[in-house]
Amino acid sequence: MSKRLPTLAVVGATGAVGTVMLGILSERENVWGEIRLVASARSAGKVLRVRGEDVVVQALTPEVFDGVDVAMFDVPDEISKEWAPIAAARGAVAVDNSGAFRMDADVPLVVPEVNADQVRNRPRGIISNPNCTTLSMIVAIGALHRTYGVKELVVSSYQAASGAGQEGIDVLRDQMAAVGADRSLAEKAGDVREAVGELGPFPAPLAYNVVPWAGSLKDDGWSSEELKVRNESRKILGLPDLRVNATCVRVPVITTHSLVVHATFDSEVAADDARKLLGESDGVQVLDDPAKAEFPTPADVVGTDPTWVGRIRQSLDDPASLDLFLCGDNLRKGAALNTAQIAEVVAKEFTKD
Amino acid sequence: MSKRLPTLAVVGATGAVGTVMLGILSERENVWGEIRLVASARSAGKVLRVRGEDVVVQALTPEVFDGVDVAMFDVPDEISKEWAPIAAARGAVAVDNSGAFRMDADVPLVVPEVNADQVRNRPRGIISNPNCTTLSMIVAIGALHRTYGVKELVVSSYQAASGAGQEGIDVLRDQMAAVGADRSLAEKAGDVREAVGELGPFPAPLAYNVVPWAGSLKDDGWSSEELKVRNESRKILGLPDLRVNATCVRVPVITTHSLVVHATFDSEVAADDARKLLGESDGVQVLDDPAKAEFPTPADVVGTDPTWVGRIRQSLDDPASLDLFLCGDNLRKGAALNTAQIAEVVAKEFTKD
Repeated sequence: MSKRLPTLAVVGATGAVGTVMLGILSERENVWGEIRLVASARSAGKVLRVRGEDVVVQALTPEVFDGVDVAMFDVPDEISKEWAPIAAARGAVAVDNSGAFRMDADVPLVVPEVNADQVRNRPRGIISNPNCTTLSMIVAIGALHRTYGVKELVVSSYQAASGAGQEGIDVLRDQMAAVGADRSLAEKAGDVREAVGELGPFPAPLAYNVVPWAGSLKDDGWSSEELKVRNESRKILGLPDLRVNATCVRVPVITTHSLVVHATFDSEVAADDARKLLGESDGVQVLDDPAKAEFPTPADVVGTDPTWVGRIRQSLDDPASLDLFLCGDNLRKGAALNTAQIAEVVAKEFTKD
Repeated sequence: MSKRLPTLAVVGATGAVGTVMLGILSERENVWGEIRLVASARSAGKVLRVRGEDVVVQALTPEVFDGVDVAMFDVPDEISKEWAPIAAARGAVAVDNSGAFRMDADVPLVVPEVNADQVRNRPRGIISNPNCTTLSMIVAIGALHRTYGVKELVVSSYQAASGAGQEGIDVLRDQMAAVGADRSLAEKAGDVREAVGELGPFPAPLAYNVVPWAGSLKDDGWSSEELKVRNESRKILGLPDLRVNATCVRVPVITTHSLVVHATFDSEVAADDARKLLGESDGVQVLDDPAKAEFPTPADVVGTDPTWVGRIRQSLDDPASLDLFLCGDNLRKGAALNTAQIAEVVAKEFTKD
């Protein structure tokens, strides 16, 4: 007798992350029986390909979750907030990639390489996927934490435009086209601002520029993105008092977030030992030989699955601190891939021989 | 009787920094009598404008320094190393913008807003101008240090292409022209690398990318640029044991370096107090109102003189730590302007009523 494989619903199948998700579901070892694609009523009836088959997109209704074991949500916060509990009430485990439930004490925040055991602590039937910026570093930091015990993180981000969705991608491409051929630009204050045209979701030009802002304004000048890095790192690592200072900056890269992390541990960490440990860790790829110009960059990392780590240096002032440069594809591990990995952990519960 | 004004020589007048220097000498209140422009034999005979007058460029020879009171050097390290002592031997005070003498114990490293008093401690007749990355933050950090006492700096840079000279500017412009119009790029690993063409002075593509490397490889994986930020900050602030961790990253910006700094002080610092103090400090401009999308960005800062500071936040874990975002034009304050300011301090010694 063949296995009974669980049924999956992908809510938000037509969006930027949803599109990457269909690719990931098609590439990875299949653990799913039926896959239902779900989107807004506007997109219902569209035909998308997944696992080499055409699938008709269904409208988001309560009934679409009947018989579904796992429902992934790649939709805005307010849609998740309303619909993930509906899916859960219909018996599905909701794996949500929005910010709606991440800090809910009754919702686990899961990165399978770090805290896969947390998927079963889900009294609401909902599991959250972390923010893409946190996800671009936390697999590597989690691996170091298990051996050395992390005490403090100082994080600076170099975030890609696609973190702001398809509109972010489109606006950066428009700006690059507008400024790319003009060799006189960027010599005096404001001329790039004049040349780029629309700013889209960004508060300043992104082409030929960097912008020290992502998300919305919270108390005391912190951005929502910076507080997510802080709060989500604490929750995933199970360290509610971890010291975290993050400054989030947008850069003119389409996809793949980069981060500089200064991490302080409970015990001394030699760079070679950290390099070896990270090289043996699931989901981490070390690329660290500056003599050969080997270090990760977003242009070389985009479209790949691991968290890439390079520039691993022991602090000259503190043998228990490391300075690192990390890159991760914010649409894959930073969103769709991690959601798929969580769903696969849950799928095992429903898979019957 | 009119004043006797000192004679200035500008060595490297035809280079990227030299060109900015001639503009700065033309804009600032004039403190100079004769200004001699000096360059390689190849450029001798060229006519350049400074202070609204045409000046013929002279070849670099020992005799060109006869009668010169102050000689600025905006040339590569090896040229400074050879020629600054020759200028000094001929009686000129050499103000050198190269890396040749910065860490020499007998050469002061001066930022007039921070340590102008050091210009007189020059047993070799040479004064050094700091590296552009250090200069992009040190005026602001120096101001905070005077009141709060700085203990530790964690620095991440977002460095402009012009830090690598005219070749860096040209290569980034070529890369931007090559990728700007192609809307299919930057979706998978390596396709930007294929599209950009020449890498020039950078070890990876800079358009649609960020590159975690600047300078040459030093011990234990640190780059020369990262060690400059550490060693020069210590020397300028007069704090030989200051803890400094820097990670230097190149971004696709033509001119103006940005830095994220996590600074820890001896005493508590409220963000409002820091904002007020920085706002009253010479050479610093505060732009810090995220609710109105007000923070410095390189595109808005390029061509201006101050160190711009925004995103001023008190650490949520430590009331004695601040997180800041700073921008400074690396060709002006980061090079030509600070050199001009040092020379002006020296000029006072030679100015006779």
